Amino acid sequence: MKIVVLGAGVMGTAFTMPIADNGHEVHLVGTHLDGDIIEEIHETGVHPRLRSRVSDRVTPHPIAGLGEAIRGADLVVLGVNSHGVAWAADVLGPLLPPHVPVVMLTKGLHGDGSALRVLPEFFGSRLPGGQAINVMAIGGPCIAGELAARRHSSVVLSGRDPVALRTLAQALRGPYYHVWTSTDLTGVEVCVALKNLYALAVGLVIGLLEQEGIASNGAHMHNLAAAIFAQGLYETAYLVRLMGGRVESVYTLPGAGDLYVTCQGGRNSRMGRLLGLGMPYARAKAEHMPNESVEGAMLAEAIGDTVHAMIRTGALDAGRLPLMLRVIDIVCNGAPVDIPWEAFFRDTE
Amino acid sequence: MKIVVLGAGVMGTAFTMPIADNGHEVHLVGTHLDGDIIEEIHETGVHPRLRSRVSDRVTPHPIAGLGEAIRGADLVVLGVNSHGVAWAADVLGPLLPPHVPVVMLTKGLHGDGSALRVLPEFFGSRLPGGQAINVMAIGGPCIAGELAARRHSSVVLSGRDPVALRTLAQALRGPYYHVWTSTDLTGVEVCVALKNLYALAVGLVIGLLEQEGIASNGAHMHNLAAAIFAQGLYETAYLVRLMGGRVESVYTLPGAGDLYVTCQGGRNSRMGRLLGLGMPYARAKAEHMPNESVEGAMLAEAIGDTVHAMIRTGALDAGRLPLMLRVIDIVCNGAPVDIPWEAFFRDTE
Repeated sequence: MKIVVLGAGVMGTAFTMPIADNGHEVHLVGTHLDGDIIEEIHETGVHPRLRSRVSDRVTPHPIAGLGEAIRGADLVVLGVNSHGVAWAADVLGPLLPPHVPVVMLTKGLHGDGSALRVLPEFFGSRLPGGQAINVMAIGGPCIAGELAARRHSSVVLSGRDPVALRTLAQALRGPYYHVWTSTDLTGVEVCVALKNLYALAVGLVIGLLEQEGIASNGAHMHNLAAAIFAQGLYETAYLVRLMGGRVESVYTLPGAGDLYVTCQGGRNSRMGRLLGLGMPYARAKAEHMPNESVEGAMLAEAIGDTVHAMIRTGALDAGRLPLMLRVIDIVCNGAPVDIPWEAFFRDTE
Repeated sequence: MKIVVLGAGVMGTAFTMPIADNGHEVHLVGTHLDGDIIEEIHETGVHPRLRSRVSDRVTPHPIAGLGEAIRGADLVVLGVNSHGVAWAADVLGPLLPPHVPVVMLTKGLHGDGSALRVLPEFFGSRLPGGQAINVMAIGGPCIAGELAARRHSSVVLSGRDPVALRTLAQALRGPYYHVWTSTDLTGVEVCVALKNLYALAVGLVIGLLEQEGIASNGAHMHNLAAAIFAQGLYETAYLVRLMGGRVESVYTLPGAGDLYVTCQGGRNSRMGRLLGLGMPYARAKAEHMPNESVEGAMLAEAIGDTVHAMIRTGALDAGRLPLMLRVIDIVCNGAPVDIPWEAFFRDTE
């Protein structure tokens, strides 16, 4: 297959590893923000942030080369971050033949002020004739650096067409890249989007522990982190069901697996730590992570107003989302960290 | 209330902290194996393994004092390990008035060669007139040392009688001990038992990583651990449903929360590491953890034969439990570690 990956961030680039190893012809096209990265791959063969050698089977292109790269492609993969989805639809729209499927690596939810949509739907709706294009997505516990190092990684390829899913999964999977399929596109995408927000919440505990210190008997705060982890999955299950997804996605790779891996470090955890130390979000972002995408915070900003609007109309039950609402309040309004214990696990009796 | 805790291990003793802080009269009775611990608490006020001061409101007793301690008790709490449940039923049987409820902190499943039962049922069935006694259980992500250090800990009190659950939860909860209730006794108990076995499986990755080393780009093996974590929850959900429990318990505190916290270290993780390093189970146990209860391995031993018998009769589907079967094989037959990727997540499409 000829596969074009748009977006040369860590995930887009790491994804080229298993598919190049499978013998596909791979083109990695940087966005307008990835110029330096593409240049460095050209010069040294190494992705600067991934710190891995890109396969020789991968041809890097600047954004100006997108049109040429996409000619004759069998598959387009979106590796942009959640802010780049509308842009990607706009640049791909005129270039994408209707028979070429798209796979999104991007995680997020789109809020338009009155409803939430998963990104493959939002992306498809921005394409001219988008209904005709098969937009699939890959989610699951896959830290980019590990995939680039050819370490065992497990993901779910989700979409609406089971035959297309099985065919594509077969072309993508390999000895270290384990690909399952799911027709629960909505459930998978809600899970993998929310995991960023809830991993940020679990990360708060890192800061809280630093403030309070290890106890005299050596105790940390894993119990607290675990309760937040579980409440995050519980809220995820509520939203998955409400949006028409299947709860099975919550306790498999997209939900539990991806939240677990996202809690092992990374940008959401680092932001969580700063907030847990008592720093207001705006200051933490500006002073400590000015040029980094913190997807959990980006999601809170992207859906905060829509979530509140949906609560006002009764489309969402605030009582079932206390942790999400607290994170939104922390990120969007600079609210202090304060765990709403009494509101957790409502209706589980 | 007058509350008697039988078993002075780390969990039984830690549990005395929040209830003593709530003003209850607490008696901690050591088993015949806890003699030294009780003596040390008498002499120094400190539990040697918990490394925490026991509340002055707790009266320690050797096993010989059980009869006296239990007189007039309003509640008996079982803090023995899973090997001690039959023994506890035998010693408590003659002493326990039918109106006094029992709360089990012990985690495990009982296999009798043809069926699996949750421990509260097994325990109740061993009591004379056991049907009359209300046996409840506490599960959830609660590392004993953290509870003893009065750090936020969240648990689920489960049982069949919702009124009794609410009343007791009210008496147990406090500012750092968060107690929810669940009538899904079966689901909660299956989750909290299996978490030990699956945490051992996640722990394998620690050893595998030590063998293979951190990659040149800094990559660990979190993706692998996360896939095992998710497969563990998926198998848990299969068994919970099959035994009549509710899947909601899987993606809340008893399942996801407790598995998460158990993967943060502890004896199951340490055993997992040794196995992941390539050591056969018998050698790892004898040479490195001879006097420690590794609950995940104990569960594999306790249910291995029953699980295989149930597969032969068609009561269990082997294809839905590949990870559990591998752990049983590793623990019971000294099998090597080898992740059965191709068998994971069957029927999730």
